[in-house]
Amino acid sequence: MENELRRDYFTERRVIISTGRGRRPTDYKLPLASAEDTSPGCLFCPGNEAATPPEIMRVEEAGKWAIRVFPNKFPAATKEPWSESESLIPSYGSHEVVVESPDHAGTLAEMSADRLARVLDVYSKRADAMLSDMRVGYALVFKNHGRVAGASLAHTHTQIISTPIVPQVVAEEVEGARKYRARKGSCPLCDAQETESRGPRAVFNDGKAAAFAPYASRSPFEAWVMPVRHVRALNELSVDELLSLAEAMRVILKGLKYRLNDPPYNMFMHMSPRGEDMHLHFEILPRISILAGFEFGSGIVINTLAPEKAAEFYGQK
Amino acid sequence: MENELRRDYFTERRVIISTGRGRRPTDYKLPLASAEDTSPGCLFCPGNEAATPPEIMRVEEAGKWAIRVFPNKFPAATKEPWSESESLIPSYGSHEVVVESPDHAGTLAEMSADRLARVLDVYSKRADAMLSDMRVGYALVFKNHGRVAGASLAHTHTQIISTPIVPQVVAEEVEGARKYRARKGSCPLCDAQETESRGPRAVFNDGKAAAFAPYASRSPFEAWVMPVRHVRALNELSVDELLSLAEAMRVILKGLKYRLNDPPYNMFMHMSPRGEDMHLHFEILPRISILAGFEFGSGIVINTLAPEKAAEFYGQK
Repeated sequence: MENELRRDYFTERRVIISTGRGRRPTDYKLPLASAEDTSPGCLFCPGNEAATPPEIMRVEEAGKWAIRVFPNKFPAATKEPWSESESLIPSYGSHEVVVESPDHAGTLAEMSADRLARVLDVYSKRADAMLSDMRVGYALVFKNHGRVAGASLAHTHTQIISTPIVPQVVAEEVEGARKYRARKGSCPLCDAQETESRGPRAVFNDGKAAAFAPYASRSPFEAWVMPVRHVRALNELSVDELLSLAEAMRVILKGLKYRLNDPPYNMFMHMSPRGEDMHLHFEILPRISILAGFEFGSGIVINTLAPEKAAEFYGQK
Repeated sequence: MENELRRDYFTERRVIISTGRGRRPTDYKLPLASAEDTSPGCLFCPGNEAATPPEIMRVEEAGKWAIRVFPNKFPAATKEPWSESESLIPSYGSHEVVVESPDHAGTLAEMSADRLARVLDVYSKRADAMLSDMRVGYALVFKNHGRVAGASLAHTHTQIISTPIVPQVVAEEVEGARKYRARKGSCPLCDAQETESRGPRAVFNDGKAAAFAPYASRSPFEAWVMPVRHVRALNELSVDELLSLAEAMRVILKGLKYRLNDPPYNMFMHMSPRGEDMHLHFEILPRISILAGFEFGSGIVINTLAPEKAAEFYGQK
């Protein structure tokens, strides 16, 4: 089928898998994202700690910092006083930056599973800390890698923004999962990772964590990474499960970096909102194609590489 | 307020208006989109008609074509036979290209209102023709202007893709309008254009058509253009109303082209789906900021220029 309309596992999101132009995975190799950067005075490098806002958290290794967390200098969320009776609603919350490595050229892709697990643990702790404020409705952990994906600084970092509401994309997933459960009696992501691990879109599954190219992929090489066990947040995982999750993530990130010339990508974590029961997962969206008028006007993304081809690519040794 | 959370008039879409960086409208001037192109052998130019798929429609002026419509060479929708019982659903429909001018360097912004009204009439006729196939659920008219906005050819053109379903973004607007009407007894866009025409986000209103910067603008300089009268599709407009609509659109497109260095933009038309009653409108989204992980993960767009400033910019003489 030249043009196939696919629907996401449990939301209304649809994509057109349009393979008529016959591009192969290697046709998507782009110029190196990492080559964009030559900044000598990087604010995130060791030695420039005083140039960032005051540190919130750090993880040390051999007496030096390995991971640092501090507020974003230009926050998109602020703790402004407000009452619900007012007509103007502030973007109430906080906006933090997690610098995952002191190494200017390092990325998550080169980290050992053990090291990456510690990074995931920092994401978890900071998101949980934000959610301890009951006026915060959600905390979104996200990474912009490469300028095209929105990274204004090249040194590896992830951001966390908390919002007074549950954002629409997350609310749609929660609602979709609720409907799916009512219909089938099971969690859509428990089902998806189990089914996908046995099919043509499988990339990784060690019984504790899974990575696969989702059926309705929005982008060439889109990948989802999640624990096999139904957990709502990272803080429910055992050390073993966290290590497996890190390993599953590494398979994807290494594939992108070393066999696709390090394209720009966005990654975000969808944990369960407070009081809800959604399966924790990470979505990795390479920013290889351009979203245009059709995508904005319809919400349907045209993807020129079938996820089955993407999984094949990731699965190659 | 440094960071304000705003909700769209009638859907769940939210944006953060984040003006903390204090940029002014003129700070958004980008390199000319039109300067990207120097193609000598343009497929859309007069003389190369044989290189496009067979023409579907043309409008002539002084014995030469002024507007041409033909199928997209790489369609994202195709009329593949299928039955609803099958598990694979094709992206059933058609995909057409409207070249609005024989002039390689011309754009909609330079056209007279009369000339632009004829272009709008072609959009209308082709969308209606697509909808005469009852297996088609919707026809989306959209323009990609500039490479960043997804235009692979620089010569002005608009595309129309029909889909077997009503796309999610349109379905959400229909549903939002239904809820709004149940609550208030009126159409959200009748109300919005009336209220906005009297306030700080007004750009144009001659009693027949309106243009304004929407309250929850997703992008610096986002603008909506619509007839004042509640119509579902372009084919319901009188000639006078169509001319006013063209004039309202020109105010926006000329502002972008001549006073903002011609940035890339997407424009799309939301007509009412068959059997529904939604107020026809055009949305114009300049592609000036980068959508990043927060936007994809949350659905909330961070916009660094308040629409009140955008309206001020458009309203300047």
